[in-house]
Amino acid sequence: MARHYLDHASTSPLRPEARQAMEAWAATGVTADPGRVHTEGRMARATLEDARDQVAALLGVRPRQVIFTSGGTEAVNSAVWGVTRASAGPVVCAAIEHSSARDSSARSAAVVEPAVDRFGILHPEALNEALERCRTEHGSPPTLVHCQWANHEVGTVQPVEAIVERCRALGIPVHVDAAMAVGHVPIDLTALDADLVSVSAHKLGGPPGIGALVVRRGLRIDPFVVGGEQERARRAGLENLPAAVGFGGAAAALASPGRIEAEAGLARRLTDRLLASGLAVDGVTAYGDQAHRLPHLVCLGIDGVEAEPVLLGLDQAGIAAHSGSSCSSESLEPSPVLAAMGVDAERSLRLSVGWSTTAVDADAFDAAFAGVVGGLRALR
Amino acid sequence: MARHYLDHASTSPLRPEARQAMEAWAATGVTADPGRVHTEGRMARATLEDARDQVAALLGVRPRQVIFTSGGTEAVNSAVWGVTRASAGPVVCAAIEHSSARDSSARSAAVVEPAVDRFGILHPEALNEALERCRTEHGSPPTLVHCQWANHEVGTVQPVEAIVERCRALGIPVHVDAAMAVGHVPIDLTALDADLVSVSAHKLGGPPGIGALVVRRGLRIDPFVVGGEQERARRAGLENLPAAVGFGGAAAALASPGRIEAEAGLARRLTDRLLASGLAVDGVTAYGDQAHRLPHLVCLGIDGVEAEPVLLGLDQAGIAAHSGSSCSSESLEPSPVLAAMGVDAERSLRLSVGWSTTAVDADAFDAAFAGVVGGLRALR
Repeated sequence: MARHYLDHASTSPLRPEARQAMEAWAATGVTADPGRVHTEGRMARATLEDARDQVAALLGVRPRQVIFTSGGTEAVNSAVWGVTRASAGPVVCAAIEHSSARDSSARSAAVVEPAVDRFGILHPEALNEALERCRTEHGSPPTLVHCQWANHEVGTVQPVEAIVERCRALGIPVHVDAAMAVGHVPIDLTALDADLVSVSAHKLGGPPGIGALVVRRGLRIDPFVVGGEQERARRAGLENLPAAVGFGGAAAALASPGRIEAEAGLARRLTDRLLASGLAVDGVTAYGDQAHRLPHLVCLGIDGVEAEPVLLGLDQAGIAAHSGSSCSSESLEPSPVLAAMGVDAERSLRLSVGWSTTAVDADAFDAAFAGVVGGLRALR
Repeated sequence: MARHYLDHASTSPLRPEARQAMEAWAATGVTADPGRVHTEGRMARATLEDARDQVAALLGVRPRQVIFTSGGTEAVNSAVWGVTRASAGPVVCAAIEHSSARDSSARSAAVVEPAVDRFGILHPEALNEALERCRTEHGSPPTLVHCQWANHEVGTVQPVEAIVERCRALGIPVHVDAAMAVGHVPIDLTALDADLVSVSAHKLGGPPGIGALVVRRGLRIDPFVVGGEQERARRAGLENLPAAVGFGGAAAALASPGRIEAEAGLARRLTDRLLASGLAVDGVTAYGDQAHRLPHLVCLGIDGVEAEPVLLGLDQAGIAAHSGSSCSSESLEPSPVLAAMGVDAERSLRLSVGWSTTAVDADAFDAAFAGVVGGLRALR
């Protein structure tokens, strides 16, 4: 049976350009530690720095601002570690943030949760209220404010520029988890001017096992993983060169003029179609802010049926989809994102597309969805 | 010009078996998060667990004891974090330990350094003396004792069984950094019974970007990287499946009967030859314990010439070698390992072989070494 992968927001297949870059490096036959002075080491170093240049160009920053990490989760852990080690005070972290931001903050500091609206938006007024609570409840301005660029579960794009501008004006360090957004919407991190930004490669068609923490020029933070001088002494451990090369290849492809806009246009047409197929079924609603959502993902609420049987029913029809937060699905627990939005946190379906998705995949969902939901409702 | 890579101890090329395993997985065309319930996710999960089984079999432990990490450095950081979070007290860490053990310990606890002898050996008597200093200087038994299986710079194999047995008898958690040893000497971690063991894939012919922390059965430790339930909630972040598959492929190859013994025999003949070529030059000595060293690496002291010009001279002759600790070479600082042994820490040369090394590589070193050293000495 043909398969239709509608779970790109969990992880996206390797782009051809990333694969070609990795194969070209492998074909040189060179293996070396980029920290070595021998010829092989210098070749590895040059290749690593080329990859860093490519990633920096996609993000609109200088290469030396880019610290390669083992992924988005480590990048977020590193951001929180680096900032909270240097000063006390609470961390402002909404319940809709990814679990890596929530969990790493909670273990390092008191957490103040700003409210979000029913679409998952963190409004500047809610930030102000949280800052006030930091003062009244903890006697201190926050050590760090988190504001994800866009939500991993419902796709809502935050007013991230306004939040960052407010924090910068107050002198409060701000971290932006951009893992869901980079590669899917145009991004200029120099214009944003956040202190710290976390990025993941595999969510934009790069390989797994690599991500980046982008650090504002002039900001120095304690390293999270220690024990070596790699990444300008900001992240220890042998550099994952094949993965960096793949990340660079994907970034270079996405940085070509008009590419992101073209892919985003196609993705939005596909997700609009998926949304329409979903909303055509009674008792199905859209979660998140449809006026400000990522182009490549939609989230549906489905009355009266549990998430897991819907996923299994779709899977039997050849469709791979997801429910709930990307990182808590093994337990299929209620989603903290949806709970914070005040909607039913147990009956959601996330559909996400990517560079390899075609109209055939959307057709397959359209053909299957009503039958899967109807069949489950009939069993009640 | 033909190249001769004698720096396997920094990083070893991918073994054919590892490459084949990775290519076979890539050829399925499946990309998915192993935590997902859809068909692709279940395929990814099964593949990940197969890789874990292969690594566990090489190490002689149960699969669920194996936590995949982004590499040896993260594994060591995780071991130190997990243990030192749970209790106060100093950490016993010799100066010859890898910088990941030294640095991660120093940021989490007071460090007591046991002495090593001039061959780099940590004797049980020196451990006893350090334990006594923990009591007298810090009023507490140690939270953790580090004992590397074998040294990364001189190859000295520690009396690790005796050290672990002593710690276990005293109820003191012990961490063994086995990154240099695994795949190069037969290892049975169940027999060793250490609390925590760190392993790296790329040093045994697996890919970079993956390693493992092996946890004794029944031991629970706080995760270092948080924000997801991956690895049984012991290491957050999307699993690096391609790298795990490569690690598994390399581990499976090495676990075949007699394979490690055969490779070790060849490696020892090659390094004995390199040693003889080195010692044939006046003013060259061997560092480390020649009776108890890893088969695949030797370290030479060279009177009267700095390390860097030797490396560059050898490089011009087609030979890639290394000096000093693997993780501090960018600065070419004096080696803390050699300093702790009481030998000249600025004039060392490390030669290391691996699965792809042949007699031709040793011949090349033999042909070049005396000329490189003689030429440099003539310049003085």
